[in-house]
Amino acid sequence: MLGKNIPVKNSLQNGVILAATATQLPVITQLISKESLAAAGTEGFIIRSVNYQGKKIILITANSDIGILYGSFHFLRLLQTQQPVSKLEIISSPSLQLRLLNHWDNLDRYVERGYAGMSIWNWHTLPDYIDLRYKDYARANASIGINGVSLTNVNANAMVLTKAYLAKCAALANIFRPYGIKVYLTARFSAPIEIGNLKTADPLNDTVRQWWNNKAKEIYEAIPDFGGFLVKANSEGQPGPQNYGRDHADGANMLADAVAPYKGIVMWRAFVYSQQSTDRFKQAYEEFKPLDGKFRKNVLVQVKNGPIDFQPREPFSPLFGAMDQIPLMMEFQLTQEYLGQGTHLVYEAPLFKEVLEADTYAKGKGSTVAKVIDGSLYGHSLNGMAGVSNIGNNRNWTGHLFGQANWYALGRLAWNYNLNSEQIADEWIRQTFTNERSFVTTIKKIMLSSHETMVNYMTPLGLHHIMGNGHHYGPAPWSDNLPRPDWNPVYYHQADSFGIGFDRTVRGTNALAQFAPEIRKQYEDINTCDEKYLLWFHHVSWKHKMKSGLTLWEELCAKYYKAVDDIKAIQQQWNSLKNYVDAERFQHVQQLLTIQVKEAIWWRNACLLYFQTFSKMSIPDKYEQPDKSLKYYKSLRFPYAPGN
Amino acid sequence: MLGKNIPVKNSLQNGVILAATATQLPVITQLISKESLAAAGTEGFIIRSVNYQGKKIILITANSDIGILYGSFHFLRLLQTQQPVSKLEIISSPSLQLRLLNHWDNLDRYVERGYAGMSIWNWHTLPDYIDLRYKDYARANASIGINGVSLTNVNANAMVLTKAYLAKCAALANIFRPYGIKVYLTARFSAPIEIGNLKTADPLNDTVRQWWNNKAKEIYEAIPDFGGFLVKANSEGQPGPQNYGRDHADGANMLADAVAPYKGIVMWRAFVYSQQSTDRFKQAYEEFKPLDGKFRKNVLVQVKNGPIDFQPREPFSPLFGAMDQIPLMMEFQLTQEYLGQGTHLVYEAPLFKEVLEADTYAKGKGSTVAKVIDGSLYGHSLNGMAGVSNIGNNRNWTGHLFGQANWYALGRLAWNYNLNSEQIADEWIRQTFTNERSFVTTIKKIMLSSHETMVNYMTPLGLHHIMGNGHHYGPAPWSDNLPRPDWNPVYYHQADSFGIGFDRTVRGTNALAQFAPEIRKQYEDINTCDEKYLLWFHHVSWKHKMKSGLTLWEELCAKYYKAVDDIKAIQQQWNSLKNYVDAERFQHVQQLLTIQVKEAIWWRNACLLYFQTFSKMSIPDKYEQPDKSLKYYKSLRFPYAPGN
Repeated sequence: MLGKNIPVKNSLQNGVILAATATQLPVITQLISKESLAAAGTEGFIIRSVNYQGKKIILITANSDIGILYGSFHFLRLLQTQQPVSKLEIISSPSLQLRLLNHWDNLDRYVERGYAGMSIWNWHTLPDYIDLRYKDYARANASIGINGVSLTNVNANAMVLTKAYLAKCAALANIFRPYGIKVYLTARFSAPIEIGNLKTADPLNDTVRQWWNNKAKEIYEAIPDFGGFLVKANSEGQPGPQNYGRDHADGANMLADAVAPYKGIVMWRAFVYSQQSTDRFKQAYEEFKPLDGKFRKNVLVQVKNGPIDFQPREPFSPLFGAMDQIPLMMEFQLTQEYLGQGTHLVYEAPLFKEVLEADTYAKGKGSTVAKVIDGSLYGHSLNGMAGVSNIGNNRNWTGHLFGQANWYALGRLAWNYNLNSEQIADEWIRQTFTNERSFVTTIKKIMLSSHETMVNYMTPLGLHHIMGNGHHYGPAPWSDNLPRPDWNPVYYHQADSFGIGFDRTVRGTNALAQFAPEIRKQYEDINTCDEKYLLWFHHVSWKHKMKSGLTLWEELCAKYYKAVDDIKAIQQQWNSLKNYVDAERFQHVQQLLTIQVKEAIWWRNACLLYFQTFSKMSIPDKYEQPDKSLKYYKSLRFPYAPGN
Repeated sequence: MLGKNIPVKNSLQNGVILAATATQLPVITQLISKESLAAAGTEGFIIRSVNYQGKKIILITANSDIGILYGSFHFLRLLQTQQPVSKLEIISSPSLQLRLLNHWDNLDRYVERGYAGMSIWNWHTLPDYIDLRYKDYARANASIGINGVSLTNVNANAMVLTKAYLAKCAALANIFRPYGIKVYLTARFSAPIEIGNLKTADPLNDTVRQWWNNKAKEIYEAIPDFGGFLVKANSEGQPGPQNYGRDHADGANMLADAVAPYKGIVMWRAFVYSQQSTDRFKQAYEEFKPLDGKFRKNVLVQVKNGPIDFQPREPFSPLFGAMDQIPLMMEFQLTQEYLGQGTHLVYEAPLFKEVLEADTYAKGKGSTVAKVIDGSLYGHSLNGMAGVSNIGNNRNWTGHLFGQANWYALGRLAWNYNLNSEQIADEWIRQTFTNERSFVTTIKKIMLSSHETMVNYMTPLGLHHIMGNGHHYGPAPWSDNLPRPDWNPVYYHQADSFGIGFDRTVRGTNALAQFAPEIRKQYEDINTCDEKYLLWFHHVSWKHKMKSGLTLWEELCAKYYKAVDDIKAIQQQWNSLKNYVDAERFQHVQQLLTIQVKEAIWWRNACLLYFQTFSKMSIPDKYEQPDKSLKYYKSLRFPYAPGN
């Protein structure tokens, strides 16, 4: 990093970096105040320029070994981003206690919604073969403060809870432990039937409960610091307590009781919807809000950032601020299932920040989503944030090199959600490429605009869920052939001769009633509703006058066309930076941007041509007209799109 | 490679290396005789130390650009293996015309029998994204003379013949072309139905024939130097001409006619078997021998080295030497489906050589398999050898580092089958690791013994096909639950209270009658049959006296136990070489050898405990007795074993 050898010194000299806990070096309690040490907390650290025995040294200290490691990584970050280190006065402790990656990795190494090759977990050769990447992975995570990994897909396989697989998981846990990372597993609710030979998985059945108690004991014997379970139940075909007439709390509590003796936790996902619901938007709230107060102390409900499913842009989930008895954990998606998958440059920190900074008004103004999930709003000590992993066995980890920035951002925001997107991008660029100013400036601009650009070439003005069925690749707003209406794009955009958009006001499904009155009021009025959410909440006339003075149809065209121009501009900016990047990474990104531009045009043309069949209005002449027909776009098939 | 810069010179100086064809530099015809140039042939090369204009130079010349490239790679090989280069006098031309890799890669990137990650072909991002590895792959292949690649699985998907996928194939062909590598595709026989909307795929139907003619035209428009088709038909559920009452020749000729105008070829696989057959061993011969003489000139029949299916050791297929009108192409398997899959160190050159050097006696003594496949025995100018690829998207290409040696060996032997296994290992070790003598010597010993060792801890004395069903991982000689007898291990070993082995003599299925009388005679007599093939051809009493003086049962025990000792010795030898290898590769192989020893013991114990239930004899006391029960071994399940 510095281009020279840094010697290890055995004596105190000016400029020495000293890293130790107070237990290791009691004099630290004289150099650092009790209050400062307390402020660092269990995992935090202090980096301070101090005079010690007449020498000017840099002290990295903490209350734990992992704190020292985090402090050391932070110090390295300062060096690599060329920050001044002469007068350091840093106390840092994490915003959130659980900072997790959720891998959606199957036991056959297929990664659901994975666009970076296959799973990095080579289950077949574990536990005997320890791929060096496991350690690289742990180190990378520790460097950004991630302290937990759920290894397996939430569409779970009970097999991972068998003895042979627990030995494999234990081998990974052993690699991760020195890096402060705990292993979590996804618990398939029907595991007692599938691998336990029981006839039921009813959470109130004593034999079932005992099975899980025994299973927990077995797991903790293999992995003494096992973190706990992540559960998707009664969701998209997964079994759950409702199969037995029980509720989510019954299910979660059973598992919570099993791991409680070992200080384990349960993260119970709130991602549920059913075809009985009048509006998929409302389902999670309707199922979970009534259960508030019924969960054990070691349960968190893990909520996706938005009410539908990781769309390019969603309003925050109304569950945030609606439940005060149980901690809600944030689930973001790093893997770009709906965000261009493996080939689009989309920096997600602005998306994350938009949600975290959203005000729920749950306890008046300033009740941000961040304050819900950090537990401060309701006084929960258990709290956390998870990112659905975008990591695979690709050489560069994430398929798209810039996918690394999203992994990085998740870790940094889970540590400190007050960091802004620009700071995080700045850090990542400098550590990944170079500190060269013009490069950093241009790439930062590209990254910071990339999410908004993607939203606008895919789903502007609050459109959502209009992608291809199943694989979720490319546009298919016309799609209406799946057996359940809530799987079909036409359900979400509701385009007709009058207009477009999903009416969730009191005149429609009244989903807005799930928000605090302040939010509801703002969104319910078509004139005060932020236009970026407009079609999330209103069925709007094609002729509706937008703030720009354009009609909705014109605005839709304007958004789509501008977004394509914007991604073309990003492409040009990248091309101008050839001299700053090695040829391999330059070509990698260059080729991917070519695909991104092509696909942005595809989205624009396919969506406008299709919506035009309702609006009966023409795409303004000033725009380059689509060179392919709607029929052509509808004819495209992608049976082997990845991640499906 | 040399640790210094090699300057490019514009003037003639002593020590210069000059690489050019006679067309580029006409003076070459004065330096090199017509006869020598002719001997180099189309793809070969000449490397010679010559005096030219008073300077001592090294001349690399050839009749084609690709010859120059091959010559240059050969020269680099000499340098890297530290061969003397002061007096060079090399003329080299390939033994075989078609030197191919067969990828069994699916369009979703799953590799059938792949143990090195997923397919390196990222079909989803092709043709727009060109992974740099495509070029590395082409260069690696060119360096060992491989000149063709069948991109897709023989269990074929017609989709690859659609326009969108042909564009993807064309992109790969463009990368490969400068490296002398042609692209081949697997043709699904029912493609005219599946992607052509025809009602039939009958090869004698004019519409079907026209469809293939048009398809060939379309392919050649996209890929002007397209190599041709590789076809698996009427085999393991694949459609074929027999579905329409036609024969293999009818099917092959239809495709051959379609590609003939463009000089394309068809490689028609002879891997067929059916449950109607009395002995799977005999099926390919029975189906194909009667068709000899019925195939077009641009067809080759591609035959697996042995009559069953890439077992650890097989006698050569009786088809070699049985058909004289059509060229037979050799199909070896690099991917170690039955040879320890991704975790066993098995150097395959001795297996390849054993087959190539086997004498078919088809035209008297000396009618080796090599002379059958190089065309010299019957005067075929079209000839070739294919290796089923062991390459995936793993960082080290082949999963097991030593898998690279098998890829290397295939290329080298296809170029020159007179090279011996030791020479090839020597080259590979020096180019992959180091020229350090003691390292080279020890690793060569390890590699050269590894195949025999593996045969003996899996299937000694001619046992075959006793592995786990479906995934083919681990031992399962007891397995008898598949619907077809010829899929079950018990069909192959025939163990009973009398003895073990498959009687293929005249008293049994008489499969031996498919060989030349010289071979038949030797194998038919239990006393002259090479003991390594004994149980391939005889049902032998447990008490049969072997050449060693031991009974068959004792010999079986001795073989299994010695093989485990041998692999343990290999493990120790590797461990002694720590100082010669970088830590990453050292640990990689070390960990894999731990698995290999463990699995060798598993094979030994599981097989002996099972066969013991028939022999009723004990494992001699001098051996460490199995520490697990047969019941335990039978209970093992591997639903997520790779490659299945």
